[in-house]
Amino acid sequence: MYELLKTEGTARRAQFHTVHGTVQTPAFMNVGTSAAIKGGISSYDLVDLKCQVELCNTYHLHVRPGDELIYRRGGLHRFMGWERPILTDSGGFQVFSLAKLRKIKEEGVTFHSHVDGRKIFMSPEVSMQIQSHLGSTIAMAFDECVENPAPYAYSKASCERTTRWLARCKAEMDRLNSLPETINPHQMLFGINQGCTFDDLRIEHMKAIRELDLDGYAIGGLAVGEPKEEMYHIIEVVEPYMPKDKIRYLMGVGTPGNIIEAVARGVDLFDCVMPSRNARHGHLNTWQGIINLNNAKYAEDDRPIDETCDCPTCRHHSRAYIRHLLKANEMLGMRLAVMHNLYFYNTLMERIREALDEGRFAQFRAQYADLLDTRI
Amino acid sequence: MYELLKTEGTARRAQFHTVHGTVQTPAFMNVGTSAAIKGGISSYDLVDLKCQVELCNTYHLHVRPGDELIYRRGGLHRFMGWERPILTDSGGFQVFSLAKLRKIKEEGVTFHSHVDGRKIFMSPEVSMQIQSHLGSTIAMAFDECVENPAPYAYSKASCERTTRWLARCKAEMDRLNSLPETINPHQMLFGINQGCTFDDLRIEHMKAIRELDLDGYAIGGLAVGEPKEEMYHIIEVVEPYMPKDKIRYLMGVGTPGNIIEAVARGVDLFDCVMPSRNARHGHLNTWQGIINLNNAKYAEDDRPIDETCDCPTCRHHSRAYIRHLLKANEMLGMRLAVMHNLYFYNTLMERIREALDEGRFAQFRAQYADLLDTRI
Repeated sequence: MYELLKTEGTARRAQFHTVHGTVQTPAFMNVGTSAAIKGGISSYDLVDLKCQVELCNTYHLHVRPGDELIYRRGGLHRFMGWERPILTDSGGFQVFSLAKLRKIKEEGVTFHSHVDGRKIFMSPEVSMQIQSHLGSTIAMAFDECVENPAPYAYSKASCERTTRWLARCKAEMDRLNSLPETINPHQMLFGINQGCTFDDLRIEHMKAIRELDLDGYAIGGLAVGEPKEEMYHIIEVVEPYMPKDKIRYLMGVGTPGNIIEAVARGVDLFDCVMPSRNARHGHLNTWQGIINLNNAKYAEDDRPIDETCDCPTCRHHSRAYIRHLLKANEMLGMRLAVMHNLYFYNTLMERIREALDEGRFAQFRAQYADLLDTRI
Repeated sequence: MYELLKTEGTARRAQFHTVHGTVQTPAFMNVGTSAAIKGGISSYDLVDLKCQVELCNTYHLHVRPGDELIYRRGGLHRFMGWERPILTDSGGFQVFSLAKLRKIKEEGVTFHSHVDGRKIFMSPEVSMQIQSHLGSTIAMAFDECVENPAPYAYSKASCERTTRWLARCKAEMDRLNSLPETINPHQMLFGINQGCTFDDLRIEHMKAIRELDLDGYAIGGLAVGEPKEEMYHIIEVVEPYMPKDKIRYLMGVGTPGNIIEAVARGVDLFDCVMPSRNARHGHLNTWQGIINLNNAKYAEDDRPIDETCDCPTCRHHSRAYIRHLLKANEMLGMRLAVMHNLYFYNTLMERIREALDEGRFAQFRAQYADLLDTRI
């Protein structure tokens, strides 16, 4: 349940109540693809990193270790040792980006696993069944992610199918949530807006899916390589048609600047592999911009990554030490770097919320939207 | 300074006082080769794992990031964030096992770095200078590690050179410790007994090096592939010639059973990469024996690695979860496994000490020496 607390222009400060606790929004979800954050970060570490929601990948977990195994363990929360909300994606994005030899029909998609090549069938019903097995707090609808740029006719037909799939997702989730053996009978469903970069398709699709009165609405199919101006434009086009009383999630976004700009355009929820992936390569966020720890100038730098940061890494370790570890390919280097970047992102969201609470988000945006994306 | 508290047969319970704190012995040193434990374990984690002494590798740190860089950072303790004792090896073992195209002369050894092929000269003086730069609590003497089996004549000549090198190490350390810019002017020096598997060479060499009145004595050149009975035999042969009032360190050993047997033969200090390396491959120590987490039977096992263990891993995570992480090649799997095995080893030493304190070490040895090395 979405509880709006305050607005500033189109930006929204809210709380999202779930059976696994309340999420303060705007919020950034930390991505634990295979039931773990890459970089050796456990669920217990995530609490120290101020993470509110962990995102896990349905496709990856279905392939390995298998959603039925996780179901028999009591679900993903118990399996990982994470008590707060979990969002699972639908598998759609991975089916369309990772899997090989896929075949799309009205019924669903047949494809081969990227791990062992075995044939898998995924449909709205199957995706809901897997996510029900995982017992996540929030399940995402199974949709088709169309690559940009795409022909208009294909995009339109795909959107219409995604709408039909969404109705099937909802029906299947209602059924699953009513079963006595379901791990989380309060599982929520978010629909996903598609329509590539066509304004009219985006709007028509949004109008169609809001009719289903879901627990939240996502904007999908963005941050896949298009210019950021185009992404901001699509958000602005779709936003007026998104229900005001539902949480809004911009999938796979993004840089700190992207997040600030999307919050300004009315988005509540984000996820991205960027902070952890960049960290593993030595690209670290600071409140002065992005530093590349591989640069020789940091070899003898005894300062923490960010002198104003109080994350577990910055409290104890120097740039020189972490740079050495990354150069020596020591796992510890990656872990320390990932911890910093996740903490940075979660703290960024905290500061955005504080700015909204205090009615100074416009000022915060002016100060940080460009600065935080600058390489220094 | 070695303070003997109690004995049981040849086994010794003692305290070893250093400028970085007191070590309760028998003790196991945790190996952080390149200034970090492999598996993403930080110095701060090590405190939770009950580690008393961290061992770092002179050769690796000399090659990368360079001992002078670490010296300029204030030494290894500040660089890694570890306040307790550090032992650095001499580089000798790596020079003879990792480096390419080595050339041994009386003056020292010339060889090529395993990282970038660059030519490096290492000698007793150079090794002491590097270790002084690192500022470790204990420096090891620079010796030649002869491969087993070795011809008698070569072994004898090598031992004699190692003795001459030891005198040079001592003279150089005395000089370095007296310099005003030295990081740790209280750095200690341990000599290393060599002699391959020849009883008379081992004894002669031990007699020769004990004359130098060093801070401790190590037995080197063992645990390099010989049967464990041969290793135990050499310890028994040498032990009567080791000073009673000095700490004794068996280098590179070993399994829990090896450690218990060596304690029974009068050894105080150990190090080995085995617990961390085995852990990364899913081989985990328990108080019932060694389990291989890769086995299918653990796929749905919700118990911790060891039900009697209270390490950070066993307190929170199941065999099924850790097995999944290892199979999915998630760093977190390795980190959780390594934490468990290091905690196990450090707890093993704690229990050995308790058994000695309470005069029941013989009973402990009978119960555990074989059991802990058994694969179950």
